[in-house]
Amino acid sequence: MTAGEIQSDAADAGAPAARGTVSSFGDRLAEQVVRRQSQIVLGLDPDPALLWPHALELVGGADDESAPPAVRAARAVAIHCGLVLAAVAEHCVAVKLQLACFERLGAPGWRALTEVIQSARAAGLLVIADAKRGDIDVSARAYAQGFLGTTPSPFGAIPGLGVDAMTVSPWLGSDSLTPFIDVARESGRGLFVLVRNSNPGAVELQEQLVADGSLSELVARMVSTLGAAGVGQHGLADVGAVVGATAPERLSRLRELMPTTVFLLPGIGAQGGRVDDLAPVFTAGVAGGIITVSRGIVHAHRMTGGDPGVAAGREAARLREQAWRLAA
Amino acid sequence: MTAGEIQSDAADAGAPAARGTVSSFGDRLAEQVVRRQSQIVLGLDPDPALLWPHALELVGGADDESAPPAVRAARAVAIHCGLVLAAVAEHCVAVKLQLACFERLGAPGWRALTEVIQSARAAGLLVIADAKRGDIDVSARAYAQGFLGTTPSPFGAIPGLGVDAMTVSPWLGSDSLTPFIDVARESGRGLFVLVRNSNPGAVELQEQLVADGSLSELVARMVSTLGAAGVGQHGLADVGAVVGATAPERLSRLRELMPTTVFLLPGIGAQGGRVDDLAPVFTAGVAGGIITVSRGIVHAHRMTGGDPGVAAGREAARLREQAWRLAA
Repeated sequence: MTAGEIQSDAADAGAPAARGTVSSFGDRLAEQVVRRQSQIVLGLDPDPALLWPHALELVGGADDESAPPAVRAARAVAIHCGLVLAAVAEHCVAVKLQLACFERLGAPGWRALTEVIQSARAAGLLVIADAKRGDIDVSARAYAQGFLGTTPSPFGAIPGLGVDAMTVSPWLGSDSLTPFIDVARESGRGLFVLVRNSNPGAVELQEQLVADGSLSELVARMVSTLGAAGVGQHGLADVGAVVGATAPERLSRLRELMPTTVFLLPGIGAQGGRVDDLAPVFTAGVAGGIITVSRGIVHAHRMTGGDPGVAAGREAARLREQAWRLAA
Repeated sequence: MTAGEIQSDAADAGAPAARGTVSSFGDRLAEQVVRRQSQIVLGLDPDPALLWPHALELVGGADDESAPPAVRAARAVAIHCGLVLAAVAEHCVAVKLQLACFERLGAPGWRALTEVIQSARAAGLLVIADAKRGDIDVSARAYAQGFLGTTPSPFGAIPGLGVDAMTVSPWLGSDSLTPFIDVARESGRGLFVLVRNSNPGAVELQEQLVADGSLSELVARMVSTLGAAGVGQHGLADVGAVVGATAPERLSRLRELMPTTVFLLPGIGAQGGRVDDLAPVFTAGVAGGIITVSRGIVHAHRMTGGDPGVAAGREAARLREQAWRLAA
């Protein structure tokens, strides 16, 4: 991919609300997947103690050693994320940012977050905030404004982070999700509801049997219903689902219950999931699932040795080809 | 209460980890409730469009009109919260800060959040972050470090917000909660797990019937188990539960399942809950439940007319007396 192509992608992935007619999130994602020929989502969850050595060298040169640790760490985190993006963005369709990793650096972390969002956009990627937020009523709306919309104030409108999508928790019920959907839908943005997570403990609640199947199946029906009014021309809804790639036997069932839903799939690699098990997801089309990989890409050099950027790029390219072949 | 008493309370409510021996969160809360003779938690969820007029006047005088709206709104929010604290802190045991309302203002909002935390501490209050976070593994730990602990980095330790407790979601299972508990427990801080919320849609998941009762009862057992190792000398655990005050018929049952758990009780007032229905909560002692009220206090003047500070103080005092009489 040339710099010119990145430029053109960046324009397409840019702020949707700025357009005359707003495309739905499902359509924007579907077009982006085809354009990039990739279902790979780069997960960025930067730990200041585990940054690429080159990021520390770069921050060292320009660093003010009297600045508070949070300021210096946030700068290093932003540089690290920029390096990772430069190494692998061409193989990816989107980036998923783990909010916890920015939030724990306080206000400087929040500034680093906005910088990384800009870098990801400049590289032509859609941006997903992995925030796992969930709240009721006006608080849900406040989160939605902060991530996907704008906050009205006596001092003028306050722009939010402007991400393309975010993850949300269904634990408080569908009335806690509708404020997010309202804000997202009006500007062509999307949501990913936590339907079935990939950690071992996820079974404790999500696999409980209720009247008509498991609780995650109940949430799947909720997601399908909430997304119905937001299905675009490519047949994909704007309310997606986080579904762990670690439970392949459940993917077909969840696809049945959510035929138009985009699956955001964590768990490939370190957690044991395999790309080849994801076939049922792509019955909804090549953009029916997007695969998020964090440490598997960013820390690939720990397995292979060599330069972190080269190792990350190689691993991202490998995963991209594997998924594209499966889905096409 | 005199200024001197506030001073002395502030010292007691201050950063627990700074002490030689760390008291458990349950003990710290129990002692604070008795000292303040209050179970009232002031909920602050400042909407920049609904601030007290006096806050806008104060910010107007010192304001740089060329600053971005987020900077000006964050300043107004911090001033508003300071005014509310000055009006009602003497009647309260703690403050609960709605993270969404700060986060949507970006980095300036995060700075306002740290200012409000300092103001609340200076007024002798415990600070609860209503964050409803929930994530897995290293991400859960990152949130815990950001709110309750410190983040190690090559640039030195990065202090978190330093709140006394935070709300967390159980949707991803107990292994998503243990990193929070580990970080909280080592410094005498606490958690409040979302067991049964007060919004209408909460029934959709939380009241599903599973093998042994409702799903919220299953989470209640989980909370009781997770808190068992953190029960202090006053018989209260460091893992608390958010339980809506809007469902009095469930309070006795949840108290049975969580005999040593502090209940954080939203839903009084606007959502229909009544203080008099909370008696079952206080079988665990006067600190067995703390009652969070947000708009019922902050917007009391809309019902009564008059000065917002006077109306808020009067309402907080009324609720405090009502709860204290019930619990004692």
